[in-house]
Amino acid sequence: MTYCVGIKLNAGLVFLSDSRTNAGVDHISTFRKMIVYEQPGDRVMVLLSAGNLSISQSVREILQIEELREVRETREDGEDGQPITIWNAKSMFDAARVLGSAVRHVYDRDAEALKHAGLEFNVSFIFGGQVKGEGMRLFLVYAAGNFIEATTETPYFQVGESKYGKPVLDRVLTPDTPLDEAAKCALVSMDSTMKSNLSVGLPLDLVVYEANRLQTDKVVCIDADNPYYRMVHNSWGQKLREVFDSIEDPVWDDTYAEHPLKMPATRHSPLRKISTPEEKLI
Amino acid sequence: MTYCVGIKLNAGLVFLSDSRTNAGVDHISTFRKMIVYEQPGDRVMVLLSAGNLSISQSVREILQIEELREVRETREDGEDGQPITIWNAKSMFDAARVLGSAVRHVYDRDAEALKHAGLEFNVSFIFGGQVKGEGMRLFLVYAAGNFIEATTETPYFQVGESKYGKPVLDRVLTPDTPLDEAAKCALVSMDSTMKSNLSVGLPLDLVVYEANRLQTDKVVCIDADNPYYRMVHNSWGQKLREVFDSIEDPVWDDTYAEHPLKMPATRHSPLRKISTPEEKLI
Repeated sequence: MTYCVGIKLNAGLVFLSDSRTNAGVDHISTFRKMIVYEQPGDRVMVLLSAGNLSISQSVREILQIEELREVRETREDGEDGQPITIWNAKSMFDAARVLGSAVRHVYDRDAEALKHAGLEFNVSFIFGGQVKGEGMRLFLVYAAGNFIEATTETPYFQVGESKYGKPVLDRVLTPDTPLDEAAKCALVSMDSTMKSNLSVGLPLDLVVYEANRLQTDKVVCIDADNPYYRMVHNSWGQKLREVFDSIEDPVWDDTYAEHPLKMPATRHSPLRKISTPEEKLI
Repeated sequence: MTYCVGIKLNAGLVFLSDSRTNAGVDHISTFRKMIVYEQPGDRVMVLLSAGNLSISQSVREILQIEELREVRETREDGEDGQPITIWNAKSMFDAARVLGSAVRHVYDRDAEALKHAGLEFNVSFIFGGQVKGEGMRLFLVYAAGNFIEATTETPYFQVGESKYGKPVLDRVLTPDTPLDEAAKCALVSMDSTMKSNLSVGLPLDLVVYEANRLQTDKVVCIDADNPYYRMVHNSWGQKLREVFDSIEDPVWDDTYAEHPLKMPATRHSPLRKISTPEEKLI
């Protein structure tokens, strides 16, 4: 599996991905799931992918020039009659449409053969960045090539093994969260995921993009030796345990406790205890 | 959906379940997912269920006497020629086999019709307790009627929406965890799940069973007014945030930081930045 998260804040964008792929537990490999497309001063785009690796690699390849000839017919043309690519798109929205077209192109080519092999056409992308002349944007692109955009209410997207690491994102992230704090939050989210799921693994790729810079130099590959990640991993685990211990245990017998677990009456019927084979359930 | 957790410790057993079921977001109902079977001094068994409600309710019904006549032929008989039920089973293992048989009985009756309606035969159970004469046991029973048993290495089982609440269980639980601490841990795990998933909801049913008592009076139904649950909910959220804030943010520019995020060299190649349409990916 995979775990990737993309976050859109007022201050910029944060992208984090793991690098483990598995086709069964005895077929574990390392593949990087993040690519940065950058023409400094003009555009920065970051692509994170999850799902079937053959599909996501094909899509990434099509986004480059090699297959452009083949794709050209299926792509909509720009105003000047030239095909729109991620390199000449006038907006991130147009670039997301190019990505969606590439996904559909691979679908047309591969989906039926995959289906014969019993495989779903399973892929999803986080795609975000900024094109000169408009604000930053962040998209989640589905296997059908359709996509949704992050808003202030939902400032982040996840793909892959997303559930383990979601609670901390929900608790911390707002559009006003500072960039470095959001990067820390993404790393904690990743750490929780790796704690509970073997199919997500180091090294991690982290990119932090500051709004309106149109280039990024905050790019780092994080492995088990990274001092900051090790500190986060150890501190979070240890302090979480301290917080857990600092919360009082439930007290059953003392109804005069400050926070009693058992109350004299609730509006819910008590739990059914069945004590004979003949007893009716309802 | 559903979230249920069952924990087996040296000191006893802990069971916690939510009560929300949904068949689409506009069809949300409250159904209790826990039943306690108890003959004080002889046996205590707790059943938690997840999956298709019509299946789990049928299984629970079959475990009672009403359908026993019908089931009798498909069940293995005991030594005395009488069918084995959860009420006369000599061990929790035999009781789990009775539960597995009941699941298979419902499968034989309903699976094909469900399949025609496009529905999988989706159900799973946590089933634990103690029968006089042996130790406590905890089982996870699958839709095929087969089951696995908790061990000291894996002291808990989850069914339903299990991923959000798994990290805290992994961090806290060992066989030596005291009962009330494990109950607190289960409640924190449930709280994280409800924070991130609307399909899991109050009220909760909590049962704590002390080893070798062969009856339980630690049974409580927890709703939003419960003082202990409210304290856990508020403290956990707030203290988690404090812990998060207490961990230093990453520092990008200072390579002399105590925990630098960026290191001069790693054994991994740097992240690919693509800056022209012609650039090769590999």
